[in-house]
Amino acid sequence: MNGMLKGFLILSIIIAFIAFGFAVWLYNWVKRQPATNEKIHGIGELIRKGANTFLTKEYTILAKFAFVVAVLIFVFLPKPLWDGDLGDNLLMNLQMVIAYLAGTTFSAIAGKIGIQIATIANTRTAEAAQKGIRLSFLNGFRGGAVMGMAVVGTSLLGIALVFLLTQNSTLLLGFSFGASSLALFSKAGGGIFTKTADISADLVGKVELGIPEDDPRNPAVIADNVGDNVAGMGADLFDSHVASLAASLVMAVALDKLVLGGNHVALIFCYAAIGLLSSIIGIAFAKMGKNDNPTNALNTSTYLTTGIFAVLTALATLIFEFEWRMYFASVLGLFVGVIIGIATDYFTDDRKKPVQNVAEASESGPAFTILSGVSYGFLSVLPAMIGIAVSALGAYLICAPLGFDTASKVTYGMFGISVAAVGMLSIVGMIISNDAYGPIVDNARGLAEMGNLGEEVVEITDKLDSAGNTVKAVTKGFAISAAGLTVISLLGAFLSEVNDAALERGLAGITSFDILNPMVFFGLLIGAAVPAVFSAMLMLGVNRNAERMVAEIHRQFNEIPGLKEGKVGVMPEYDKCILIATKGALKELIPAGLFAIIITIVVGLTGGVYAIGGFLTGNIVSGLILALFMSNSGGLWDNGKKYVEAGHHGGKGSNAHKAAVVGDTVGDPFKDTAGPSINTQITVVSLVSSLLAVIFLTWSIF
Amino acid sequence: MNGMLKGFLILSIIIAFIAFGFAVWLYNWVKRQPATNEKIHGIGELIRKGANTFLTKEYTILAKFAFVVAVLIFVFLPKPLWDGDLGDNLLMNLQMVIAYLAGTTFSAIAGKIGIQIATIANTRTAEAAQKGIRLSFLNGFRGGAVMGMAVVGTSLLGIALVFLLTQNSTLLLGFSFGASSLALFSKAGGGIFTKTADISADLVGKVELGIPEDDPRNPAVIADNVGDNVAGMGADLFDSHVASLAASLVMAVALDKLVLGGNHVALIFCYAAIGLLSSIIGIAFAKMGKNDNPTNALNTSTYLTTGIFAVLTALATLIFEFEWRMYFASVLGLFVGVIIGIATDYFTDDRKKPVQNVAEASESGPAFTILSGVSYGFLSVLPAMIGIAVSALGAYLICAPLGFDTASKVTYGMFGISVAAVGMLSIVGMIISNDAYGPIVDNARGLAEMGNLGEEVVEITDKLDSAGNTVKAVTKGFAISAAGLTVISLLGAFLSEVNDAALERGLAGITSFDILNPMVFFGLLIGAAVPAVFSAMLMLGVNRNAERMVAEIHRQFNEIPGLKEGKVGVMPEYDKCILIATKGALKELIPAGLFAIIITIVVGLTGGVYAIGGFLTGNIVSGLILALFMSNSGGLWDNGKKYVEAGHHGGKGSNAHKAAVVGDTVGDPFKDTAGPSINTQITVVSLVSSLLAVIFLTWSIF
Repeated sequence: MNGMLKGFLILSIIIAFIAFGFAVWLYNWVKRQPATNEKIHGIGELIRKGANTFLTKEYTILAKFAFVVAVLIFVFLPKPLWDGDLGDNLLMNLQMVIAYLAGTTFSAIAGKIGIQIATIANTRTAEAAQKGIRLSFLNGFRGGAVMGMAVVGTSLLGIALVFLLTQNSTLLLGFSFGASSLALFSKAGGGIFTKTADISADLVGKVELGIPEDDPRNPAVIADNVGDNVAGMGADLFDSHVASLAASLVMAVALDKLVLGGNHVALIFCYAAIGLLSSIIGIAFAKMGKNDNPTNALNTSTYLTTGIFAVLTALATLIFEFEWRMYFASVLGLFVGVIIGIATDYFTDDRKKPVQNVAEASESGPAFTILSGVSYGFLSVLPAMIGIAVSALGAYLICAPLGFDTASKVTYGMFGISVAAVGMLSIVGMIISNDAYGPIVDNARGLAEMGNLGEEVVEITDKLDSAGNTVKAVTKGFAISAAGLTVISLLGAFLSEVNDAALERGLAGITSFDILNPMVFFGLLIGAAVPAVFSAMLMLGVNRNAERMVAEIHRQFNEIPGLKEGKVGVMPEYDKCILIATKGALKELIPAGLFAIIITIVVGLTGGVYAIGGFLTGNIVSGLILALFMSNSGGLWDNGKKYVEAGHHGGKGSNAHKAAVVGDTVGDPFKDTAGPSINTQITVVSLVSSLLAVIFLTWSIF
Repeated sequence: MNGMLKGFLILSIIIAFIAFGFAVWLYNWVKRQPATNEKIHGIGELIRKGANTFLTKEYTILAKFAFVVAVLIFVFLPKPLWDGDLGDNLLMNLQMVIAYLAGTTFSAIAGKIGIQIATIANTRTAEAAQKGIRLSFLNGFRGGAVMGMAVVGTSLLGIALVFLLTQNSTLLLGFSFGASSLALFSKAGGGIFTKTADISADLVGKVELGIPEDDPRNPAVIADNVGDNVAGMGADLFDSHVASLAASLVMAVALDKLVLGGNHVALIFCYAAIGLLSSIIGIAFAKMGKNDNPTNALNTSTYLTTGIFAVLTALATLIFEFEWRMYFASVLGLFVGVIIGIATDYFTDDRKKPVQNVAEASESGPAFTILSGVSYGFLSVLPAMIGIAVSALGAYLICAPLGFDTASKVTYGMFGISVAAVGMLSIVGMIISNDAYGPIVDNARGLAEMGNLGEEVVEITDKLDSAGNTVKAVTKGFAISAAGLTVISLLGAFLSEVNDAALERGLAGITSFDILNPMVFFGLLIGAAVPAVFSAMLMLGVNRNAERMVAEIHRQFNEIPGLKEGKVGVMPEYDKCILIATKGALKELIPAGLFAIIITIVVGLTGGVYAIGGFLTGNIVSGLILALFMSNSGGLWDNGKKYVEAGHHGGKGSNAHKAAVVGDTVGDPFKDTAGPSINTQITVVSLVSSLLAVIFLTWSIF
């Protein structure tokens, strides 16, 4: 390892620790804020307890899952134990097991920290709202930032440590697989939990009984608030961040072997470290100006982070003599990411035509809410797909000329795409902060309502919440695009792994995945079906689970005397609802995840590496389409409902409102369960393929 | 041209004329049936007049469109006039114009005949129901069969004539493009018309005023019935049939050049002719047994046709010494087509879990109807995608060994896929008959209701209608799969066209579309977005159009005294609603179609043939997913509503019913506008690409 690389590795680790330190400072800052209102404190405690119950049960199950996978890895990966020298294999496979388990552990820790802070920040934000919007905003934002720092810090630290200790890029894929598989289940499980609770609470509360949102009489209200906290915030971005680093490093290692004095690995760590540093600075300076609004404050700090990253990486490129082409690839990625975010915003912003048209269509009934929402959701895929296509093509064309022959041009081109992904994800610390801000202020709104803090305070939290929704749309577009670029570069990593394995075995390597190769096409068609089936399984899970919970809510309203009437001192049994959501989520999350993994293995064992090349491509393409469609329609319906509630088309209680609520209910699992889980599903499938490259190469039937 | 080929060409033409003769006989048989009820006759006249109004206006606009395209073709295709010898080019381009116009004309004639018979058969079926279900069934079925015979006859005749006269396979693509572009607009325009009318009639009639379906007071009721007849029945299958023949012939011609004494072209015509012959026999023997039900009668004749085809082609293969491998490829296609149809049926059959679960979920409100329906729709893509993947892979692997070197193995493999498509589409005459049966009996039901034929008669037509819905699901699964295989083989045709053009210009040919080629990936991502955007445009068109029509219905109910109360002698102004649906449909259909064509050209001129290879692939993959999803969810919701109406979960008027109606309304444009139009969109885009291969090869920026 050369000095420069070692330097950047250590720098990455140091910056990761700075991020942790900053997170601790933010955490303490939030914790120090006054928490004097007993009622709020009490409810906050219930929420925290519920979240911890869920998390403990979830992690217990996932630990068992991870154990089984670890055993399988030990036997099979990177090479089956009996394939070659047993001693070597034992050692190597053990390392892989450790990398995998480290990935799951890091992912679990980041998740735990996020929930920890979210369940503190929510009460502080609610109480701070009594002193004005600016302080309240700061509480919510800094709470979210703890999550952002924790996630990106652990991600960068983990990757840097694995690389520093082993210099083996396949182990990075193992680490990434650990992180992603846990993220997949967190996202899917949390997604099912949160939407089960949300839908059930709304259905019985708002629709049947006509009691307001967050009314403490509703037995599902605590579960609903718990759900916001355990929805696996940031898990999809964590997963993309780790995977983009792993994918780019796999190719960087290959290039460093190829090119004398190559500094590709160093570049990746340098850019990633600068990305985290930029986010730290952006977060530190974020606050609402005097006459500012929260949306602006969030956006300003995002643009600030972007600017800092662009300038600092330019400086680093100059000083350390990195290739400028790679700099441009990374800036292109970042730039396109922001553009896609803005385009996504168009479809979910209530000042723009789509949301307003959907709200208007709601006057004709729910069928029109759905039809127009689905239509705009379908339309919304176009700008993002063009953006991803252009950035991938651009990054490839920018970097390919660095190669000196056909094969190395391809490698450089694919590496360019991965650098664009790293660039796009450089500001992920900032993005996750914005993303995590949403549920905190959403919770704060609920607490303000349940704690009777008064209309003015609820209004303030409402404003903060609305800003969260707007920014969320942008971050989601961003997250999906980043995942898109990441998985394209994982395709490059897969190729790299296959060729390494082929070389070792004296087999012919692969230089292309030709669409006209029937195996590739075979994989393509099946891979394309997977995201649809995967999201169907999750949504059916939410449906089934919500049915159970609705039955429980009905039971409580019927059996607990005085509950419906709001008799003083009568409390619903909140914990029973939490338990149902928890059990149901855990029951439903495993089949969907396993389906995705198992069908990958079946296709690989049937059609070999070519089929997998097609499979991944089909998976990426249809996954992106469906994820964009579902996230954007969901956001659109949510804001459409809010738009009607703000007094348009008859306002609350009107027919348009009823129709808009149907749209919102459909959109909930679209945008919070299925949509974002698809990202993670694609990454996991890509990583499984890369890890099993050897097995697919040697064991497949065809 | 050798004797065998000439023989099969003439045989094809003869069998096409037998089909026409049979169609005339069926037509007269239906027409001879009693039409004595004056009221029904009167309403039937209104429907016929409305349908003709729409068709005339539509064809007027499409004629203008075709004229513009013809001029463009004359200048640019197959070669720009100034590229090479002007005289040669003038002649060749003129031939292309003629082939294109012949395609549009044949397509238009088939559409016209279909509407002609449908608007006669509907009244006969309604009246025959008074004499019992068996005769009524025969009226509906034979009416549909006229359409089936007309469509497949024109398709085979057109292709055979073009080939007999020119022996030029590129001209076949021109003919196919003419047929497909007209089919696209018929399907899209008719789809918008029918759903505009259907939704508007239901919305005001059933939902707002609570008057029954097909109530003559409803101003949109005639438009609704007109819609059934102009929905572009069979247009998607016509399009697939022509395209599958064209694609396979392009490759067959290439193979016949390559292989001494090759009889590939002869084989295609032989199989296609036998397919049509089998359909004729199947239709001739179709009738309901004494204790039979209509669904069984439809299915039995389909299986009969399938069996006859398999036996006759085996005989032909034996006698004319075709390759047995191709026989197996064709039978594989047919077999998988039937399997996919059955799998699709599972998701839309009201005796199976999906429909019943959706009906049950409706008890919790429309949001759950939608969520569960979307979920099952997503799940339903899996069997079809696996089926298409397996049949494509199987056909390729079966036929590739016929090649003698790498390139010819690829050609044979792709040709195998196209033979599978031809096999799958061989029974298309039968399938279209079943498909066209649906709207006829649907109309008959409406006529029986409006003509006050009594409850018993309405019940009979209801039974026939329900069989139509069940069979429709199967034919739709079949149609989409067939389109899938067809467009995969069009990819082969595109490659073939590119290489011909490259050879002529001394440019390097193409042997692969490598996914890792950034241009291919660029095209892939954009191509995948097109079906989503295309269907969004159509659905938004339906939405906008329905809004206009709802306003008109409201106006009539408000302004025409006595209409709402059903005062004797007061009639709504049916024609105004028909006019709105017509105008709106024509206004909305062009942009969606143009979008698909123009973005293809833009991608081709930007990224050249590689980008187009990716573009087509992305288009196929995401198009199949979305088409399957939308068709199946739509069918599921339709049958879910019927299931509730049959008395489950509270029956008519219950909350579950209201929710199920929302599902049905959402499903209508899914399954009758967007879903089936996507098939045609994919074919058109594929044909445009093949036709413009030269231009993309020589003019693209990159």
